[in-house]
Amino acid sequence: MNDPLSRFSINQMTVKQLSLPELVDACRELGVGGVGLWREPVQRYGVEAAAKLVRDAGLTVTTLCRGGFLTAIDPVERAEALGDNHAAIDEAATLGTDTLVLVCGGLPHGSNDLHGARERIADALAVLGPYAAERGVRLAIEPLHPMFAADRCVVSTLTQALDLAERFPAEQVGVTVDTYHLWWDDRAPEQIARAGAGGRIATFQLADWITPLPAGVLNGRGQIGDGAVDMRQWTAYVDAAGYTGPIEVEVFNEELWARDGKEVLAETARRFTEHVVK
Amino acid sequence: MNDPLSRFSINQMTVKQLSLPELVDACRELGVGGVGLWREPVQRYGVEAAAKLVRDAGLTVTTLCRGGFLTAIDPVERAEALGDNHAAIDEAATLGTDTLVLVCGGLPHGSNDLHGARERIADALAVLGPYAAERGVRLAIEPLHPMFAADRCVVSTLTQALDLAERFPAEQVGVTVDTYHLWWDDRAPEQIARAGAGGRIATFQLADWITPLPAGVLNGRGQIGDGAVDMRQWTAYVDAAGYTGPIEVEVFNEELWARDGKEVLAETARRFTEHVVK
Repeated sequence: MNDPLSRFSINQMTVKQLSLPELVDACRELGVGGVGLWREPVQRYGVEAAAKLVRDAGLTVTTLCRGGFLTAIDPVERAEALGDNHAAIDEAATLGTDTLVLVCGGLPHGSNDLHGARERIADALAVLGPYAAERGVRLAIEPLHPMFAADRCVVSTLTQALDLAERFPAEQVGVTVDTYHLWWDDRAPEQIARAGAGGRIATFQLADWITPLPAGVLNGRGQIGDGAVDMRQWTAYVDAAGYTGPIEVEVFNEELWARDGKEVLAETARRFTEHVVK
Repeated sequence: MNDPLSRFSINQMTVKQLSLPELVDACRELGVGGVGLWREPVQRYGVEAAAKLVRDAGLTVTTLCRGGFLTAIDPVERAEALGDNHAAIDEAATLGTDTLVLVCGGLPHGSNDLHGARERIADALAVLGPYAAERGVRLAIEPLHPMFAADRCVVSTLTQALDLAERFPAEQVGVTVDTYHLWWDDRAPEQIARAGAGGRIATFQLADWITPLPAGVLNGRGQIGDGAVDMRQWTAYVDAAGYTGPIEVEVFNEELWARDGKEVLAETARRFTEHVVK
């Protein structure tokens, strides 16, 4: 029998109470081979040092989260965003991951032009895509749940993400398939097939949908198996689309963060085995 | 020049701090000719008495909110839901409105079968549609924002609402077009055209999208003009689809509810004139 955790990757945010060395130790102890990292904790630790730490531990960095926020109209803000995304690509390359997740950005203050915001994302991808591909990194547009359309990401569906991504070569721009953001959408399964056929699935992430949502709605994601998402079904969609890469669990949840991080990681690996693999 | 408020209707929930007689008085004073009513306050006042009150004041009841919650699997719960919806149709007929808004219901506890839940809604509409039409009432399926898919309404897009409605005659089942729920969806404009062509737009409701969302996300809707929704644009879509009926403002917002209700109604009418009509 195969190792049930062979495709499992833990996104750092799920156990953000762990320092980077603690996370690496816990992964080694629990037989977890993949981690999705976030820029801020990596920068605090030092990008080169973090790269060495995970490399020495034999861990695969499945993604770096995140670039994006590319919707500003103001030229100074746009230039800053592009600069920051170039830096994010460099960091991804240093960490040895091939995937930089993009949270593309919401509406600029006072604007209600969703279409215009999406076009500015495309303009930015035209600049960032080649820079990323030259460094072995692919940009992974993440459609976020429509409840984030105003303030975080104007790309709300996998359809929209693919419409954007397909303007560019597949080695430059792919998509992030995340159950938390897509589970409600009856069009998502066919779009996963579309993404797979085009070689656009850059990463597959899992979180469950639980209610009630907390204020601000950001940190109310559910542990695998606790909510409304049929994890096995969504994994089957992605598998059928030809995706064979890592499956990253990324849960933002205040209650999980308040617990012992290693225990949460162990629980997450168990849930993965129970609800995704079996 | 036409009366800028000629199509304006105030949904009772926007100013729920007003009693029904206070609401009727305020409408008369401010020249508001339409109200959308809710079952609970109407029942507390008495359905017949409420019907007489609004009729005597010359008000049009543009909608009754709401029927629905038709997704239960348990046979007893299903029978109760059908009974309650028959009662809601009777109440709508008594109030003299031609539109009963349906919030169709979320996933039953422990289920993650969105498709099955939607099919149970169709089964219920087959029973309720003829009963409603015989009484001069049309059922108006309201797609709710995808953030409500688990706990309130598995119908998340206008596409899904129309796919359901079109299984039945247009005089039995239509749709509710509400900016709050649809504003993020780039497919909604074409679906409004589809709804209009089929004579399916039963009501057009407005609320603005503001962030951050409050805990539970139900009562965080924005006053017209305060948020991300281009009200004029959405009204133009509905107008272009041939809809000439009332435009109902339905805002659930704790801050508005804490203020003087008549002042809020006056403000809402002003905002309607500024952001919708002009």
